[in-house]
Amino acid sequence: MDAITFIPDESRREPLYLQVYKHLTERIRDGELRDGEHLPSKRALAAHLKISVSTVETAYEMLVTQGYATARPRSGYYVNGIEGLVADRPYIVPEEEPERFGASTYRYDFGTDAVDASAFPYATWAKITREVMSDGGGLLARGDVRGDECLRMSIAKYLRDFRNVRCRPDQIVVGAGMEYLMGLIAGLTEGTFALEEPGYSATARILENLGASVCPILLDDGGMDEHALYASGATAAYITPSHQFPTGIVMPVARRLRLIQWAAQESERFLIEDDYDSEFRYSGRPVPSLQGMDPSGKVVYIGSFSRSIAPSIRIAYMVLPHDMMDRFLKKYGSYSSTVSRFEQHTLSRFISEGHFARHINRTRLVYRRRRDAAIRALQSMESGAVTVHGAQAGIHLIAELRCGFSAQQVAAAAAAHSVRVLPLADYYHGPSPESARDRMVLHFAGMDEETICDGITCLDRAVLGLQAGHSGHRT
Amino acid sequence: MDAITFIPDESRREPLYLQVYKHLTERIRDGELRDGEHLPSKRALAAHLKISVSTVETAYEMLVTQGYATARPRSGYYVNGIEGLVADRPYIVPEEEPERFGASTYRYDFGTDAVDASAFPYATWAKITREVMSDGGGLLARGDVRGDECLRMSIAKYLRDFRNVRCRPDQIVVGAGMEYLMGLIAGLTEGTFALEEPGYSATARILENLGASVCPILLDDGGMDEHALYASGATAAYITPSHQFPTGIVMPVARRLRLIQWAAQESERFLIEDDYDSEFRYSGRPVPSLQGMDPSGKVVYIGSFSRSIAPSIRIAYMVLPHDMMDRFLKKYGSYSSTVSRFEQHTLSRFISEGHFARHINRTRLVYRRRRDAAIRALQSMESGAVTVHGAQAGIHLIAELRCGFSAQQVAAAAAAHSVRVLPLADYYHGPSPESARDRMVLHFAGMDEETICDGITCLDRAVLGLQAGHSGHRT
Repeated sequence: MDAITFIPDESRREPLYLQVYKHLTERIRDGELRDGEHLPSKRALAAHLKISVSTVETAYEMLVTQGYATARPRSGYYVNGIEGLVADRPYIVPEEEPERFGASTYRYDFGTDAVDASAFPYATWAKITREVMSDGGGLLARGDVRGDECLRMSIAKYLRDFRNVRCRPDQIVVGAGMEYLMGLIAGLTEGTFALEEPGYSATARILENLGASVCPILLDDGGMDEHALYASGATAAYITPSHQFPTGIVMPVARRLRLIQWAAQESERFLIEDDYDSEFRYSGRPVPSLQGMDPSGKVVYIGSFSRSIAPSIRIAYMVLPHDMMDRFLKKYGSYSSTVSRFEQHTLSRFISEGHFARHINRTRLVYRRRRDAAIRALQSMESGAVTVHGAQAGIHLIAELRCGFSAQQVAAAAAAHSVRVLPLADYYHGPSPESARDRMVLHFAGMDEETICDGITCLDRAVLGLQAGHSGHRT
Repeated sequence: MDAITFIPDESRREPLYLQVYKHLTERIRDGELRDGEHLPSKRALAAHLKISVSTVETAYEMLVTQGYATARPRSGYYVNGIEGLVADRPYIVPEEEPERFGASTYRYDFGTDAVDASAFPYATWAKITREVMSDGGGLLARGDVRGDECLRMSIAKYLRDFRNVRCRPDQIVVGAGMEYLMGLIAGLTEGTFALEEPGYSATARILENLGASVCPILLDDGGMDEHALYASGATAAYITPSHQFPTGIVMPVARRLRLIQWAAQESERFLIEDDYDSEFRYSGRPVPSLQGMDPSGKVVYIGSFSRSIAPSIRIAYMVLPHDMMDRFLKKYGSYSSTVSRFEQHTLSRFISEGHFARHINRTRLVYRRRRDAAIRALQSMESGAVTVHGAQAGIHLIAELRCGFSAQQVAAAAAAHSVRVLPLADYYHGPSPESARDRMVLHFAGMDEETICDGITCLDRAVLGLQAGHSGHRT
């Protein structure tokens, strides 16, 4: 019984039977207890370890369930040997890695699409959540893979009223973020995706991660050039026509219609309209969706509440043409929705009771002031004349800085002053054209006006430093 | 100005400027207003339509933004023609389809993995949600792609204490359901996935949808047979060793170690342990995870709260070996988590404050009583002797019915009595063996004991009817 000698510790959180079980399995695994060996009787081991017989019995039962031992009637327990089966590579625990996520390390971060936390009506959201939860247990059951009907109805109505999207609730699929939905879309076609260049690197990455083929199409002043699209052989085109990311181009209607025409010419072709920041338009009136202009059912319209409510609310949606919805249900009909039904119902009521529209209106004002502050600060920079592009909407703008240095050099100098700005060139999949050289992308929604001004003052100082250093070198 | 004559309707919800804008774009699109045509002055149109000048101005601005018109300084607005660009295929709205999802149409549904709604501690969950929401706006920002650290810590501790899983929080990835996580795993390898036969059709479907190659491996009494696995050429094996789905087999430890050995032999090989219902074990003690036996870091462990809490709480998790976590972060590091951070923090506190363990204990008792009721009812069926398999854990069991009819025939007869049972044969990817012929899968967690008994009485009646019909035919 020597191999089974150890001191069970009653003060440990681990129950005694588990301590006995673990000790026995370790002895079996290290070969001290061998194949066919007769284990001590329950009574004997209990006496030996000064524990109860029932504790030993439980441990022995576990051994049998797990295959470490066999029980023979009226004879007792016998070890099932497993020597030689245990791999001897040690389990390597690497050093603790530094935290990769979390708060920005920059004092002024114009490179993040953070939004304003303070504008979110927590109290309302919590109240609705509470009410939804008190409505009973129906929401615990599995829901519709497309999302619950109430939420699809709220979204459809919102899209009709505010975005001129033509859709019915049964065309909508709700999912946990754009990345997830793009993955589902990628599964519905085998063709090549045309992407905007410059554009969302996230979209390219998701598609490439899924093994889909992508083809960047260089934009002109009107957005994606249809001639290049025809030449590309792509079957799907991903576009942000209302406010191109990141350039801010609004696609003219004639271009929109020519893209719809492109899609309508072949049954396998379609457009993906990502209306990612349509809620925040500051000058002029809302640009209606491209989807609403399409009489042929060739546009997949996608949007998200992650930006308009909060990044941590992981609810995005897509509006599918009817034939694609049929394909969707055939392929994914057995899946579960990726969004909690409690949160779906909370959001549905948040929209249908008007809180969402009010929140958007409030937030739009806040962001407009921030945008205005950013533009004012940029235009009073001492280091050079600045032209702002694409600032009629959204939560970022393009600053074209004529200071004698490229945006890349400015970004590097700014980083040393704890200011993060991203060169437009970073948003290109391939090499960027000369016209992008002096342009930077500035996200402004996550900072208040004072912080924005301070940040741009710091940026200015960084550029002035560059210029001083440069002239210094020259002299 | 005739083409622009219509009556703006102030009583409509749609603002006047939008009515004017829409009317103008329709006239441009149908060609009544042609390329180059000079639009009436703002003042003239306002007088014509009896609306304010600023309303017309807003509509004209929208036309320019959208590319329908061009503004020329000191001259006015000119139409940009777009005739011939509008596709003429009509927009087809199909008939309303019947609801595909929602409540079961069976009176007694043993075919659904529904769980008990009444056991869920709403009040606690809502209270924690409220507290999490009142903690401030920090949770609105984008979180860690793996899920927030607090939740990963709670899960790691739970898995260590209750499942003997060896992991640290930085090995955990939280995601919106198993389907999503399986998709991520599929992206980390290019090899073939060995699947249990019979097994989860959902897993096969997800992998096939993603274009991954799968290979079903016929189970023997110990689960997945390692010889067949070696022969298959697969690089990943998806297994449910603690309680195989649907057979309920507990994989013996020697088999487990041989599978770990299989994985350890090649760097690209790994095991996926799906511990889908480990929380509900009724006889004997918990079966520790296979992951905890693996010294070589070759096991991806996955689990979900959809079953243990509720299907509508879309939170699943996986524990990755360190080298796979590196691959994960390289490939998916720029993604957002698919789970709302509010819900992550709620769940984290639900676990760390002990509510989860209490809930599981309560639910386990409830399900155990339901299982016992199901077994008792099955064993008193008049239509034939019943052997129950795999009922030591989980929320389903296998009933082997010796009544002279196959499970397929019994299921069809039961359906006519509004009882849904699924033949074990349905869980095979390929043809099922003779041994599966008389076996049915019964899920019992979604009904109370009385309903279960009534359902099985109905099932019995259905089989007795079959037998009577059969002997009737014979005579």
